[in-house]
Amino acid sequence: MESITEKRKLDRENTLRPIRFIEEKNIVRVIDQRLLPHEFKWLDLKTVEDVIAAIQTMVVRGAPLIGVTAAYGVVLAVLNTVKINQGDDFLETECSKIKAARPTAVNLAWAVDRILAEVRTVKDPDQKITTAKKQAGIIEAFETESCRLIGVHGLPLMEALCEAKHGRTVNILTHCNAGWLACVEYGTATAPIYAAHEKGINIHVWVDETRPLNQGARLTAWELGRKGVKHTVITDNAGGHLMQHGLVDAVIVGTDRTTHTGDVANKIGTYLKALAAKDNGIPFYVALPSSTFDWTLTDGIQEIPIEEREPHEVRYVQGLDGGKIRNVLVPPEQSPVANFAFDVTPARLVTAFITERGVCKPTREDILKLFPEKREIP
Amino acid sequence: MESITEKRKLDRENTLRPIRFIEEKNIVRVIDQRLLPHEFKWLDLKTVEDVIAAIQTMVVRGAPLIGVTAAYGVVLAVLNTVKINQGDDFLETECSKIKAARPTAVNLAWAVDRILAEVRTVKDPDQKITTAKKQAGIIEAFETESCRLIGVHGLPLMEALCEAKHGRTVNILTHCNAGWLACVEYGTATAPIYAAHEKGINIHVWVDETRPLNQGARLTAWELGRKGVKHTVITDNAGGHLMQHGLVDAVIVGTDRTTHTGDVANKIGTYLKALAAKDNGIPFYVALPSSTFDWTLTDGIQEIPIEEREPHEVRYVQGLDGGKIRNVLVPPEQSPVANFAFDVTPARLVTAFITERGVCKPTREDILKLFPEKREIP
Repeated sequence: MESITEKRKLDRENTLRPIRFIEEKNIVRVIDQRLLPHEFKWLDLKTVEDVIAAIQTMVVRGAPLIGVTAAYGVVLAVLNTVKINQGDDFLETECSKIKAARPTAVNLAWAVDRILAEVRTVKDPDQKITTAKKQAGIIEAFETESCRLIGVHGLPLMEALCEAKHGRTVNILTHCNAGWLACVEYGTATAPIYAAHEKGINIHVWVDETRPLNQGARLTAWELGRKGVKHTVITDNAGGHLMQHGLVDAVIVGTDRTTHTGDVANKIGTYLKALAAKDNGIPFYVALPSSTFDWTLTDGIQEIPIEEREPHEVRYVQGLDGGKIRNVLVPPEQSPVANFAFDVTPARLVTAFITERGVCKPTREDILKLFPEKREIP
Repeated sequence: MESITEKRKLDRENTLRPIRFIEEKNIVRVIDQRLLPHEFKWLDLKTVEDVIAAIQTMVVRGAPLIGVTAAYGVVLAVLNTVKINQGDDFLETECSKIKAARPTAVNLAWAVDRILAEVRTVKDPDQKITTAKKQAGIIEAFETESCRLIGVHGLPLMEALCEAKHGRTVNILTHCNAGWLACVEYGTATAPIYAAHEKGINIHVWVDETRPLNQGARLTAWELGRKGVKHTVITDNAGGHLMQHGLVDAVIVGTDRTTHTGDVANKIGTYLKALAAKDNGIPFYVALPSSTFDWTLTDGIQEIPIEEREPHEVRYVQGLDGGKIRNVLVPPEQSPVANFAFDVTPARLVTAFITERGVCKPTREDILKLFPEKREIP
């Protein structure tokens, strides 16, 4: 990975995307999300190994963006396979490595398998490259358009909240970052928020800091700030108190994998917020493109693989001190630490899903009404 | 406040207390809990202002220790009142200032009022001083003995968990620090844990890091490590996931104020853990001395004052880097931040209270069976 610091004016970049494929150089250029908000840097991914490392170390993160990055990883894999005169077997091994980069986000396998299936149908090496690039582009466009449509379908929910509050500030709580940084454009959880903000609805977002990697405090706060959306950063512990005191009108989160039965895997701590929302009669929405549905798993809590990451992510907190990004050790050095990255919110705690095709209840029945072509899958 | 770094061997200090009144100098010596676990330092409090600052800046924290510190603060107030030839009116004003240092922990007002009432009954200045010192000592002894008894009454609960698990590890989750650092000795939430550990029960503690000030990661992990109790630090987000997967056998927490109707104010995030415990059928215990009961408030959520602290406590995380304690900025500098310090867990989510007089259900009825002398209070 090679780093390029760009001194561009951030306020001019309203159409900034966290990923671009640079056609003429055959490289994948991504924002290094580990350094935000204190440093804005692009990283160039040139090999499959670069892509895997970027996904594993969370240079890129968020289910849709992981999918798009993996898609361009397959492009790099095809380019390399052709270059060194290898066949589909080699390519498949490379793709398996990409799929194994992280276990929870289902978009990863979805994107890789989709491109691989298309590439396999053509024989000519140049055509394989063209097909891979075209399919990766389609996946990027699909995720972007899905997020736009999540905004379209989520907006009426925001309008209803605004009406119920007679124009007073609508307070949304979100966990982690399911914004455009996680999803190419618009975001999933943030799409209805951005749509409402653009419509002139008086909206304010409670941003969970989202330990251990603080994607809320670092990324969501940065995103919302750039777009001029009112927000307040809070600890992950604070949501329940706010809900008890009528300071939250709805929760909207993204997801890394959602079963067709409605169980939602998302950043660890989401389940706790869903419990508090239920306890206080507050709607709990999950915004997702169909690429995040897992059509095979039935019991999310038992079946969705939950990644356990390195303890140092909990031990050390990254931030700015004296103009320098530093990592400070919080607990005693000898104390053992565990770092589970996701949890599963059971369907019974979810009010509704906001998808690119509309809003539905968290039941197999209702999900399949929006996605009838998936009825075949047992 | 004057600081004294002591290079003493920590492992020899099994009877270490976080506070001592140095009789011959008339100073209150406390461990500076802001610097643990990376630096161990005593601070000498010489005036009422020192005591107030120590409580406000959380040099000392935890409801029982706040009470004991305030008690010695009253001793300093009496000493000064006598020295400058002032009367009870002056003393009362000083005491009001101490009581206003923090709003949530009820032990603070309880301790101050108790000593003040006794001091008022004597006229002779020297006798006032003697009375104040004696009463402060009684309060310190009461809190210590209460914690020891909480261990005695909590032990059978731990033994039952051990038996139910046929000797396999008993996993306890705790939030914040309700250990001896918060309570002079034994701790409240930790008293049953230490008692079980000493009895040879195979016990392991999940330690919530407890944002924003990380009292779990900094203090509870340090305490448990020193006593040789197995533990693992986790983010505040992780408890729900652990409970869903059978990795938590019971939750034990302390409290800053508990109504006689059973509503529990404790470090922000406690409510979320209580919800998760309920959802997973896991017992949720609150350990407290009777000094933490508020016999006047009925509706904890509506009536207990919840302190809102400085946003910088959320913005900056303190830890060790290159041998130096630093504070690093996590969110964008411009993003607003809110910092609510406590939340209230409604009685319906509590399995039982562990007090110095025994275990009871979280109802007025059952609490009064243990404390019948409080029946008078409406």
